[in-house]
Amino acid sequence: MMNLKDHIRSIPDYPKEGILFYDISTLLADGKAWQETVSRMADIIAPLRPDYVCGVDARGFLIGAAVAAKLGIGFVMVRKKGKLPGEVTSRSYTLEYGENTLEIQTDIMRQGTKAVLCDDLLATGGTAGAAIELIKSLNVSVVQAVFIIELDFLSGRSNISVPVSSLIQYDD
Amino acid sequence: MMNLKDHIRSIPDYPKEGILFYDISTLLADGKAWQETVSRMADIIAPLRPDYVCGVDARGFLIGAAVAAKLGIGFVMVRKKGKLPGEVTSRSYTLEYGENTLEIQTDIMRQGTKAVLCDDLLATGGTAGAAIELIKSLNVSVVQAVFIIELDFLSGRSNISVPVSSLIQYDD
Repeated sequence: MMNLKDHIRSIPDYPKEGILFYDISTLLADGKAWQETVSRMADIIAPLRPDYVCGVDARGFLIGAAVAAKLGIGFVMVRKKGKLPGEVTSRSYTLEYGENTLEIQTDIMRQGTKAVLCDDLLATGGTAGAAIELIKSLNVSVVQAVFIIELDFLSGRSNISVPVSSLIQYDD
Repeated sequence: MMNLKDHIRSIPDYPKEGILFYDISTLLADGKAWQETVSRMADIIAPLRPDYVCGVDARGFLIGAAVAAKLGIGFVMVRKKGKLPGEVTSRSYTLEYGENTLEIQTDIMRQGTKAVLCDDLLATGGTAGAAIELIKSLNVSVVQAVFIIELDFLSGRSNISVPVSSLIQYDD
């Protein structure tokens, strides 16, 4: 079986000193590895039968929209402040390198439906946690959060109120 | 055949007065329409046999990464300034609502290969044109630019040095 970890490179001191950044660019740029990544995500998500796959601007768009297209499920964007037209709901939160505000269109999902959140990386869980609360505030239940990479040592799962899956884990 | 236009909504005066914004959120959120969109893009791109699909941050990630996964082709991110780790090449350009700088990792594509650019919308062609020049500067040829929506009345094709395809056209 393909080891997806072989396709990820780590870049020291990015975005700031002391942070080891796991770069998925090399995974994305390899056609077979990218297809395999999307296929494994889809295998996790399909049995949950969600009505929507949601993804956070911008790298969450890569994985979420690809999995949604593969499964024939709608994709919903969670974006940074000011990027979505129409009526939006927003939520601010503190993240590792500062503060951030996420927004979602209030009328984009039918109420009482089920969603899955996809993102590239689970670190402290701040972004995913905020995105999940935002989706829930629209009366949509979030049944799972699925990541390509999980940084176990940051215990991000403790900040997330739904079950978590990840394809790749790093212990340090 | 599904009319994709039926799934796109227009929002007046966004992001500023006098601009009619074509919102793909509703297309994305409809599973069948999104799957059909990706499938039609893939049908255009597959015969070109590119080594890479490139997409511009952030909505270009949606379509480009999904098409790449479907075809088993690598995806390469063209991002806004400061968002990519490692060594990058950048290009600034003027766009409808101000100025912007795009970046690409210099080592992410093999030299002498072929790429296709994907994005959601062709307006004046400023963003796509800059992205194409950036890719070409890495000694990768861009064989086609493919969009979901093309605003014919803005003549964006005239700013783009490669063949253009689009799934949906608007005349005004």
